[in-house]
Amino acid sequence: MTSESARRIVLASRPKGQPTADDFRLEPFPVPKPGAQQLLLRTLYLSLDPYMRGRMDSAKSYASPVAIGDVMTGECIAQVVESNHAGYAVGDIVLAHAGWQTHAISDGAGVRKIDSTDAPLTTRLGVLGMPGFTAYSGMRVIGQPKAGETVVVAAASGPVGATVGQLARLAGARAVGIAGGPEKCAFVQDELGFDSCIDHRAPDFAERLANACPNGVDVYFENVGGAIWRAVAPLLNKFARVPVCGLISQFGVSEYPGPDRLPGTMRDVLSKSLTIRGFINYDFAELYPDFLREVGAGIKSGAIRYKEDIVDGFENTPTAFIGMLNGRNFGKLLIRVAS
Amino acid sequence: MTSESARRIVLASRPKGQPTADDFRLEPFPVPKPGAQQLLLRTLYLSLDPYMRGRMDSAKSYASPVAIGDVMTGECIAQVVESNHAGYAVGDIVLAHAGWQTHAISDGAGVRKIDSTDAPLTTRLGVLGMPGFTAYSGMRVIGQPKAGETVVVAAASGPVGATVGQLARLAGARAVGIAGGPEKCAFVQDELGFDSCIDHRAPDFAERLANACPNGVDVYFENVGGAIWRAVAPLLNKFARVPVCGLISQFGVSEYPGPDRLPGTMRDVLSKSLTIRGFINYDFAELYPDFLREVGAGIKSGAIRYKEDIVDGFENTPTAFIGMLNGRNFGKLLIRVAS
Repeated sequence: MTSESARRIVLASRPKGQPTADDFRLEPFPVPKPGAQQLLLRTLYLSLDPYMRGRMDSAKSYASPVAIGDVMTGECIAQVVESNHAGYAVGDIVLAHAGWQTHAISDGAGVRKIDSTDAPLTTRLGVLGMPGFTAYSGMRVIGQPKAGETVVVAAASGPVGATVGQLARLAGARAVGIAGGPEKCAFVQDELGFDSCIDHRAPDFAERLANACPNGVDVYFENVGGAIWRAVAPLLNKFARVPVCGLISQFGVSEYPGPDRLPGTMRDVLSKSLTIRGFINYDFAELYPDFLREVGAGIKSGAIRYKEDIVDGFENTPTAFIGMLNGRNFGKLLIRVAS
Repeated sequence: MTSESARRIVLASRPKGQPTADDFRLEPFPVPKPGAQQLLLRTLYLSLDPYMRGRMDSAKSYASPVAIGDVMTGECIAQVVESNHAGYAVGDIVLAHAGWQTHAISDGAGVRKIDSTDAPLTTRLGVLGMPGFTAYSGMRVIGQPKAGETVVVAAASGPVGATVGQLARLAGARAVGIAGGPEKCAFVQDELGFDSCIDHRAPDFAERLANACPNGVDVYFENVGGAIWRAVAPLLNKFARVPVCGLISQFGVSEYPGPDRLPGTMRDVLSKSLTIRGFINYDFAELYPDFLREVGAGIKSGAIRYKEDIVDGFENTPTAFIGMLNGRNFGKLLIRVAS
């Protein structure tokens, strides 16, 4: 039992386009008491991810929207601080979908004990967590890169993109990243080992991308949509695969003026025998053990590298989240809530 | 050697939108003489198929365009009337890509002897030919219908759609067809055994389609695009598959006014984990023996039915082709060139 106060961040209003600080509200609340078969979790690290923007809209997507006044959705690394549950002991470190709050009650559903200490704890929210698994499962099931092929991915310094490109390289394919600004591009090329990384802010971005893909594009891992898609689409080769795991450019946009680009895209699908396939990582849950083993080994050996952007202080969560949607993070964004 | 004159139909001009008779030109030419290792083929039946419309445009698709003045592309059943090729004897009946002409010289490339007499010859251009194989391979590789699922296909009285729906039924799925007019719809339901067939000319088409798919749509076999796609898209279930083998509604259209429907489609791809995959039947050539065996057996047993629309006279080819693009054929369209 602790005498400290708990805090949570709730959705105050639905954003129109880009969220602002006013769309969130920080609320203190008494640290809750676990009932029978329940746990009290104290959040150590909270993961901030682009999909959370989708949950702020009222439109149903692959998951239900967060209701106004409800705690924002999120995955965290937490410590068990009280336990009435036979499966968990005080002190256990777990992954949990506890949302944006410092303390949470759980009945154990969706809680996963972190049993390996091979990799730093925080990787379980990034390269060895949901973002890494999104990259791994999308590439393994849909992308299927082959030696000599070219793989393009945006947000290449982020946890999904960075892993996609490195998996492409490990498969013998050419990895071309897209990122915002010279610092990120240098990191993607020099530290992550991509063959090339193009700054999407460059005025001649589409031309640079085409030059970086002299043999066309065989896999485009789609997590952005919009202008990036329009630059990649003409480069797609016959039989190219497009795993779609996110459309961050479309959040909060409800009207799209013409021309209608769907007929041209469908014509490309037909004439190039393209595969466009959406997924969320839960679709491929049976691959999770393979992922932990393979990517875990890659991290241990140094074959798979990653970058984290850790922000201290729970109260900074909305600002950090809004910054991420504007590309201001550099690496996997985490909030250190407690240590 | 024969003293009769040969005839061919060449592309006279590229159509804007719907082709007209003026886009074609009938030309007499002397019956050619086969050289060493060559054959002279006399066309018995010429197949007319929607893909030919695409070859009339200058845009490169999965195949090269027909040049102005060149013979229109097409597959036919032909008889060998002269042979300097050890593999073929006078009298052999073959499938060949000889184009819109009464006689053709061949070196044997792409020529396939028809060795089975289990099914009528003409089926080798329809249900047991390229259209049937398009249906079979698209359903087997991409559609993958399961018992209890719902499969929707347009042009349901045509050779591709009819086969798609019957394969769906054989897999235990619900088959919902779309066709133009009450006569075709009645045929699709009553003769082909689809669970339902909706007339796309009905003013409340989208509502009727939704009513015919009370459990949503798991496979939409896309051969039309445009308004039909827009009616089907909202009905697609999570994990639905969309094999794309044609976009007949888009031929000759070069401008598409807004709104831009691509972002909404990509959002559906993501939120419903859809698979949209284009193909042409050559992509799956390794399945051709399976197709001949399975669909051949289905035709023999009566489990797979089909309808042919045979037009007499080579000179009627352009009119019949233009009619097909307007839905005026009823069943697989063939020209009987000679008997």
